[in-house]
Amino acid sequence: MTRIESGGVCFPKGFMAAGVKAGIKASGNLDLALLYSKEPAMCFAAFTKNQVQAAPVLYDKGILFNQNIVSAVIVNSGNANACTGCQGYIDAATMAELVEKRLNLGKFSVLVSSTGVIGEPLPMGKIAAAIPDIVNCLKDDGSELFAKAICTTDTILKTGCVSVQTSAGEVRFGGSCKGSGMIHPNMATMLAYVTTDLMLPKSFSTEFKTMVNESFNSITVDGDMSTNDTCVLMANGQSGIFLNDLSNEEQAKVCEALFDLMKYLALQIVRDGEGATKKIEIEVCGARRKAEAIQVAKSIAASSLVKCAFFGEDPNWGRIVSSAGASGIAFTPAKISLYFEDVQVVKEGMPVKAVKEKLSEIVKRKEYKISLDLSLGEAKASVFTCDLSYDYIKINAEYTT
Amino acid sequence: MTRIESGGVCFPKGFMAAGVKAGIKASGNLDLALLYSKEPAMCFAAFTKNQVQAAPVLYDKGILFNQNIVSAVIVNSGNANACTGCQGYIDAATMAELVEKRLNLGKFSVLVSSTGVIGEPLPMGKIAAAIPDIVNCLKDDGSELFAKAICTTDTILKTGCVSVQTSAGEVRFGGSCKGSGMIHPNMATMLAYVTTDLMLPKSFSTEFKTMVNESFNSITVDGDMSTNDTCVLMANGQSGIFLNDLSNEEQAKVCEALFDLMKYLALQIVRDGEGATKKIEIEVCGARRKAEAIQVAKSIAASSLVKCAFFGEDPNWGRIVSSAGASGIAFTPAKISLYFEDVQVVKEGMPVKAVKEKLSEIVKRKEYKISLDLSLGEAKASVFTCDLSYDYIKINAEYTT
Repeated sequence: MTRIESGGVCFPKGFMAAGVKAGIKASGNLDLALLYSKEPAMCFAAFTKNQVQAAPVLYDKGILFNQNIVSAVIVNSGNANACTGCQGYIDAATMAELVEKRLNLGKFSVLVSSTGVIGEPLPMGKIAAAIPDIVNCLKDDGSELFAKAICTTDTILKTGCVSVQTSAGEVRFGGSCKGSGMIHPNMATMLAYVTTDLMLPKSFSTEFKTMVNESFNSITVDGDMSTNDTCVLMANGQSGIFLNDLSNEEQAKVCEALFDLMKYLALQIVRDGEGATKKIEIEVCGARRKAEAIQVAKSIAASSLVKCAFFGEDPNWGRIVSSAGASGIAFTPAKISLYFEDVQVVKEGMPVKAVKEKLSEIVKRKEYKISLDLSLGEAKASVFTCDLSYDYIKINAEYTT
Repeated sequence: MTRIESGGVCFPKGFMAAGVKAGIKASGNLDLALLYSKEPAMCFAAFTKNQVQAAPVLYDKGILFNQNIVSAVIVNSGNANACTGCQGYIDAATMAELVEKRLNLGKFSVLVSSTGVIGEPLPMGKIAAAIPDIVNCLKDDGSELFAKAICTTDTILKTGCVSVQTSAGEVRFGGSCKGSGMIHPNMATMLAYVTTDLMLPKSFSTEFKTMVNESFNSITVDGDMSTNDTCVLMANGQSGIFLNDLSNEEQAKVCEALFDLMKYLALQIVRDGEGATKKIEIEVCGARRKAEAIQVAKSIAASSLVKCAFFGEDPNWGRIVSSAGASGIAFTPAKISLYFEDVQVVKEGMPVKAVKEKLSEIVKRKEYKISLDLSLGEAKASVFTCDLSYDYIKINAEYTT
């Protein structure tokens, strides 16, 4: 596992960022963020699979359908610009256009993201007024302000960076994300921005998708996503190094660093889960196919009963086995094994006796791993989840629209 | 809607029941229940779709694969006989056999159900010792003791009966069920037993399945079920009336009464949901197919965020629309309408203004209905759910295996 350093989206060469107060949030906190690459960057993106997609998601997908090069991303927090109809789309496009003009960029070179309340029109007057300001504030060390301005209910800043030494020189990656709800959040959409000065080929989109699936999509515990979820990777090539020119070993090393950064950012979201007191890894191995391992792991990770048991520090393996059985994936109950860390709890479908003391120690930990072996094949996958606590209810019941 | 009267499984002619204390529950409460039809009864059953099925479920399915006639059901609470391997199957078969012998019945004429903790062997000594006792206790008015003995975490008894007058005479239905957890419960499996003195054809199984899907399966909020869920209908024909001999109108009337009883029993489970303070109907209409309407409704009904909002009395329509969008069913967001009771909240995908006061009155109610119109077709379905409260966490985090 690569060591992730502190730093953010401005760590790779050629990126600038800013965060300002536009007055969108009632709290008066930072609520407008801008990420800018001095040279046009190759862009890869993944969006929510929700049928109901916010205007900025629809706008960005339209842009990236036609091209892969963008120069900037403008993000507002405090308002999701979702369920806002045609006007919402016009507002998203206007936000992008205002930034393009101010930065002397061509048309369709800026992406837009929004996060916050659903169904309210964007306060375009405030946003338009703040755009000259935010462009003036762009700085080479604007990572932290950017990271702050994209937050909503987040309690910790989620940033990280990593550099990789190759025979052709140094390659840098930086990133920032937000999100603190676990399940298709409302005020707590997941947004993630990763930057690099590496030059990437267009064909990297396949690899990027896999990385997103195994990082940010492995914490969306039930496959649900919000109306606004977005993950963007911008590669501006300013290191002068092209991925395909590296040796196979170095390509693998560079890709691993990127993936580890994405996973690090994703796990920060789990740690900051609404009301969460624990982070649990659910590993399913011995599956016939990876997709099946993921489905079983997500079924366990999303179960309210399982998550309550985590909170109660109860090694309730029966709930875990039952959730696996309800996943829709076929397996033979009499073949399965279940482990809490290295302690076997279930063997061939039946409980292993005399492990209660070891178990009760493990479930008291802040972070631990549960492994379910289906004994059907070689495929495996991990999903990360948190516990379901009183505070989750508090945050989500007492938040009033 | 048929009026459901108080009464239970012994209301139809020819049924007897009993409930005794076998010592399975540490609490010392009633934990062994027996339902007996004086004449062999045509039997219809639905079981959990969980891959991990408890021994009694496997045993019952084996019996009903070969025949449709049974005379009795023996039920224990306090132990699920799940994840108990071969011994569990032998124990289930032994339970049935002991009842068969004591009642002078033929082999394979008794079904078995269990509910309670997973992974513990059945205390067969206690059960074997209590079977002569429970057979002696069988009474024509044993409905209430039966209803009590099948309970685990239930806080209310769930029974009901209904009689229908036909040109051929009176037909009676009675029923009893247990279950208080909402989602693939552990200590709170759903068990349901419905009796009738009507004579039913073997082909009634299709109609029975539909009825189960639209009653008991419309409260299993995310399609998850426990390892033990069971619904049994016994029809002993003691009214002397055969369904197929009735006119079409009378057949419809009789079937409606049975379905209304099943739905009544199912809704009792929602009302008794762990920690629940509200019962909400999620109706999805305007779907292309009924299966799609059910999937969208279940996606909304199972969302922790939506259920927290119900508890917080927050008319958070954004969460409802987002959950619908995450259901995996295709629809056009710009076409949907959403109502809380008769108040329209969303029209053509966008919020309707100036309804806040009416809304805040509705969400304070103990029971209300939410309708989502997809405007795609004519199909509709309803799923019943409850809110997610602090007490749900309390019950499920503090329950220790």
